[in-house]
Amino acid sequence: MSNKAQARQRQILDAAAICFARRGFHQTTMDDICREVQLSPGSVYRYYRSKDEIIAAFVEDDSRDMSDLLRQVGALPNLWQGLDWLVDQLVAAINSPLYAELSAEIGSETIHNPRIASLVRQSDQANHQALIELFSLAQQRGQLPTDLDLPQIADLIIMLIDGLTWRKGLYPEHDLTLYAAGLKHTIKYLLSGTRF
Amino acid sequence: MSNKAQARQRQILDAAAICFARRGFHQTTMDDICREVQLSPGSVYRYYRSKDEIIAAFVEDDSRDMSDLLRQVGALPNLWQGLDWLVDQLVAAINSPLYAELSAEIGSETIHNPRIASLVRQSDQANHQALIELFSLAQQRGQLPTDLDLPQIADLIIMLIDGLTWRKGLYPEHDLTLYAAGLKHTIKYLLSGTRF
Repeated sequence: MSNKAQARQRQILDAAAICFARRGFHQTTMDDICREVQLSPGSVYRYYRSKDEIIAAFVEDDSRDMSDLLRQVGALPNLWQGLDWLVDQLVAAINSPLYAELSAEIGSETIHNPRIASLVRQSDQANHQALIELFSLAQQRGQLPTDLDLPQIADLIIMLIDGLTWRKGLYPEHDLTLYAAGLKHTIKYLLSGTRF
Repeated sequence: MSNKAQARQRQILDAAAICFARRGFHQTTMDDICREVQLSPGSVYRYYRSKDEIIAAFVEDDSRDMSDLLRQVGALPNLWQGLDWLVDQLVAAINSPLYAELSAEIGSETIHNPRIASLVRQSDQANHQALIELFSLAQQRGQLPTDLDLPQIADLIIMLIDGLTWRKGLYPEHDLTLYAAGLKHTIKYLLSGTRF
């Protein structure tokens, strides 16, 4: 895709995020999004034919960002430094404008829209699997105990991140960096080998 | 309020939860709720004049349940047993039908409905404060280190619970009791005196 097309898609998604956060997914129309982005319906529909396609693009973007982050952590020699860096990146992403608001809209849509639910589950399972692979690699390198319940630990880490996102949704004025140190310590504890 | 009125309110709330989970808050009408509960509009409007009032009732119910649970934990002599019991109660509540679905709908409504946002924040702050008071009491009894960052620990515990709720929203078929032991250990770790 050309840079211009990518920039156009980014503009449309940013405008959609503003509309969804302001009035909610269901009370936003494609017309509202066209007005917000100041493009004709034809220009918007070339990229996204429905609000569902826009939500799908958000989920896919987020999923790709998370894969990239986890791949970068895996490429670092030291797991613990990598995890600290990961927490800082996630906190910065969730702190960014409208991220938490959009997550709440996607959450509600997941409940009763099977197509979105399927995408969100797929993205969640990919994150879960990538965390397990990252920890398995660290086990092979001798950086983690070998008898960890990795699927459950990955779930608990994802719960913390989802819970953090909701803190921001509920209190948009809060700066989440306050929680970074506590999150880093808790993740290290989960990986320390305590038996659940 | 008479028992009959209370039972009627419960019936209406249960029907509304089914409708919201099925089609979402915004696509549900008061008529849908009347049909689901098999009552006339007049009977429903006597208790709830709008969907906002129904959502407000859910938030208030949940807030009252959480206060009750925390009061019971505070009345137990042993904090650690109390916290284990609390986790089991919360897991059972979040495991119950439609709880997580309804939470996701309330989450989305919180983003763009100031009246609901204010109620949800109030309820969250009451839970946060009740956790801090519970831990302060345990400190006075010599059951916890005295130099804990209680507000942050309470926030991290709430994040875990919110994240757990979203696990259930995303995977309604999952049994959350799988996570109970991991959650209990993590909460004990948070209260163990590690400096963040």
